[in-house]
Amino acid sequence: MSDKANIGVTGLAVMGRNLARNLARNGQRVAVHNRHRERTDELITRFGDEGKFLATGSLRELVDTLERPRRLVIMVKAGTPTDAVIDELVPMLDSGDVLVDAGNANFTDTRRREAALIDRGVHFVGAGVSGGEEGALHGPSIMPGGSTDAYRELEPILRSIAANVDGTPCVTHVGADGAGHFVKMVHNGIEYADMQLIAETYDLLRKVLGREPAEIAETFRRFNTGRLNSYLIEITAEVLGHVDSRTSRPFVDVVLDQAEQKGTGRWTVQNALELASPVTGIAEAVFARSISGQPRLRADAAGLPGPSTEPVVDAPERFVADVERALYASKIIAYAQGFDQIQAGSETYEWNIDLGAIATIWRGGCIIRAEFLDRIRAAYDQTSGPAGLLADDDFREALGEAQDSWRRVVATATAAGVPVPGISTALAYYDTVRAQRLPAALIQGQRDYFGAHTYRRTDLAGVFHTEWSADRSEHED
Amino acid sequence: MSDKANIGVTGLAVMGRNLARNLARNGQRVAVHNRHRERTDELITRFGDEGKFLATGSLRELVDTLERPRRLVIMVKAGTPTDAVIDELVPMLDSGDVLVDAGNANFTDTRRREAALIDRGVHFVGAGVSGGEEGALHGPSIMPGGSTDAYRELEPILRSIAANVDGTPCVTHVGADGAGHFVKMVHNGIEYADMQLIAETYDLLRKVLGREPAEIAETFRRFNTGRLNSYLIEITAEVLGHVDSRTSRPFVDVVLDQAEQKGTGRWTVQNALELASPVTGIAEAVFARSISGQPRLRADAAGLPGPSTEPVVDAPERFVADVERALYASKIIAYAQGFDQIQAGSETYEWNIDLGAIATIWRGGCIIRAEFLDRIRAAYDQTSGPAGLLADDDFREALGEAQDSWRRVVATATAAGVPVPGISTALAYYDTVRAQRLPAALIQGQRDYFGAHTYRRTDLAGVFHTEWSADRSEHED
Repeated sequence: MSDKANIGVTGLAVMGRNLARNLARNGQRVAVHNRHRERTDELITRFGDEGKFLATGSLRELVDTLERPRRLVIMVKAGTPTDAVIDELVPMLDSGDVLVDAGNANFTDTRRREAALIDRGVHFVGAGVSGGEEGALHGPSIMPGGSTDAYRELEPILRSIAANVDGTPCVTHVGADGAGHFVKMVHNGIEYADMQLIAETYDLLRKVLGREPAEIAETFRRFNTGRLNSYLIEITAEVLGHVDSRTSRPFVDVVLDQAEQKGTGRWTVQNALELASPVTGIAEAVFARSISGQPRLRADAAGLPGPSTEPVVDAPERFVADVERALYASKIIAYAQGFDQIQAGSETYEWNIDLGAIATIWRGGCIIRAEFLDRIRAAYDQTSGPAGLLADDDFREALGEAQDSWRRVVATATAAGVPVPGISTALAYYDTVRAQRLPAALIQGQRDYFGAHTYRRTDLAGVFHTEWSADRSEHED
Repeated sequence: MSDKANIGVTGLAVMGRNLARNLARNGQRVAVHNRHRERTDELITRFGDEGKFLATGSLRELVDTLERPRRLVIMVKAGTPTDAVIDELVPMLDSGDVLVDAGNANFTDTRRREAALIDRGVHFVGAGVSGGEEGALHGPSIMPGGSTDAYRELEPILRSIAANVDGTPCVTHVGADGAGHFVKMVHNGIEYADMQLIAETYDLLRKVLGREPAEIAETFRRFNTGRLNSYLIEITAEVLGHVDSRTSRPFVDVVLDQAEQKGTGRWTVQNALELASPVTGIAEAVFARSISGQPRLRADAAGLPGPSTEPVVDAPERFVADVERALYASKIIAYAQGFDQIQAGSETYEWNIDLGAIATIWRGGCIIRAEFLDRIRAAYDQTSGPAGLLADDDFREALGEAQDSWRRVVATATAAGVPVPGISTALAYYDTVRAQRLPAALIQGQRDYFGAHTYRRTDLAGVFHTEWSADRSEHED
């Protein structure tokens, strides 16, 4: 066996450290480096017996410690720090070496970096890594982009450390250049939507039925035994069941109700707008966090009245069952929108992404892991071409069965003054896409009226304009 | 009087031509230029007797025809064509000259261009011009950015051509560098939201009450005599009342129901995400257009079922009154969100924008012109500091009076399967900002659970983390 390492990691904050440990535990020979040497030493001292680590004191030494072609993982902050490390490393690398950015880069940065290195023969791989600290250590979901040659160099190693579901490692080659970071971005966007839907569900059970967090924790535990089974539902039950030790009050009642965010949700929606991909569920989730975190907006509105009369729910258990269906149906819509965005990105950036493979690698390791992803995989396995999840028979059946409940939940929430922006935008999307005629025709008429923007007709090919301010005759444009 | 022109216009497509005519009709001496000479000649031939035009055959000649400091308006396509004209012009200009981009530039481009010219002493003014072709000719709403020195040079001329309401010209100095194009962008975003709300209102009256377009045109004509009085409501009635001459069917029924868009709505939402400014109404409007225009999404969903039982509306006139209130309340929210975005942009980009002045110049000339803007102006006149429209007593009263109707409309639409994403996101926003507690607390708990993202508490200062996977003790971070 070579004395050299077969992979290197620079950046040993908790994510990088856990990734290095995961590699070593799975038989890789891992060269490690951190700008501040103490972190490297601490890793060796505390975890050196977990496997084969080679501590290095400089990037130069790190590079020299790697067998060729080199495989080197950067796990530093996104943005300028990542560029700085790349700039320092690149002169030391040779043609055929593989540089992996495992941080949360914006995929447009990854595309730029990959293009800049391609002439030097250095493979740049932007790899989305989901699962947080625990995932990095015990098995994340890994979404690598870059060239197929680079993936071939990395595949055995990545498969050794990824989460594993039913014998299948949660890693696949997503597509060229920034495809991996793109898919990781949309993953996070879907995560925002999913969390918002769960939060609204909790809020409804709390405010409409007047239930306590501990009772609602039980309800989520029950949801988790059914088709909603997922990591997010599981931890929701844990959080709601937790009692604050300082006050003996429900933990959720002592937490400040101002949600924070780090940017990938926002990026997802900004990109979706670029692609004209309607991710209304993710957008409402991102905005809901923004609203909660802006005391000025909430102060402006303080004291605005709620409904004059609130609905009385006669059959609470029927309402709970309705809420479960509304949550499931809204989740289908949110995921359908996210997967449609991946499809749109795949077409626009020419990545040829296999959507079924993405669903497969999200079944384990990542935050949105769930049985549900198996159903999405099955849907994409059964279709060819660009059809989305709403064309799938099983999802259509689930939506059809849920819709009366879904409508009752939105109507009840609306009457009760409980905001459900995520659940109601999902239902509005359902009713929009299934409509035979949309009032978009009126909008086209307005646009032609004030801006001569023209319109098309249902009965004739061509583009038309009406002389609104003259005799209202129609001309082909 | 000088033989020279006091202002020049290059780019004589319909917007530039109409702006040049408006200038000449109002006593300005206008040098005109177009890359293809025929357009210049056509302008002189057809409209030369409307005022003082000086035809020029090259940018060099155009520049030489202007008195100094020169005032020169560029009205060409946004993006690369604008940069090309600027690059060609700048070497011919002198310190103190004022270059105006009156096209629909992205404000970030305007900031870049202004910064690039400042060292040469050339004032670059990005000016939003709203009102379409008719506005350009008869009086637009004008939103100039750039320096105060530049505005001083332009002010008398711009006041002479702007729309005029109650003796006040619809032009003001918005703020430095890109402020003018920024405000124009948000204007267009608000326009998207307003049009979407009107379209949903029409759709409800059509599908829930089964009314014909001609009847609904009458309803909008009635709405237009009240507090909803506006250009958009007026033209909606005209479009709905129009009968297609080919088929003798209502015009709105022969128009293809796929709404188009040019990008400013999308820019508005992308920027709002950057600013964490929750413009849910604009976002839903932009996405609603995207959905309508994507046959694949609609094909996927074809045949999905609607409600098993549809609501019966016993009192149609009460429903119409409810719809009027829902539309008005939703409009307040959409405008409050848009003005909040302007406030956020003003703070972030240090523009010190006077929101009341923006409402004032939108009262005439532009697409969203309405009596309503007078009420917004009054609201900002009465407040100081950063408070938004939901802090205004009159708007609060209107929302409070509307809310029961608003809830009935959303509930009825939901039960009937008619999509109202704009109206329902507005109500969800209302219920979110007025809520004393939001389920954002649960989201913070989830984030701390899976990502150690920490949370704040309601009862203690500081940032905390719970050891979820250990003994669940809490530590200050």
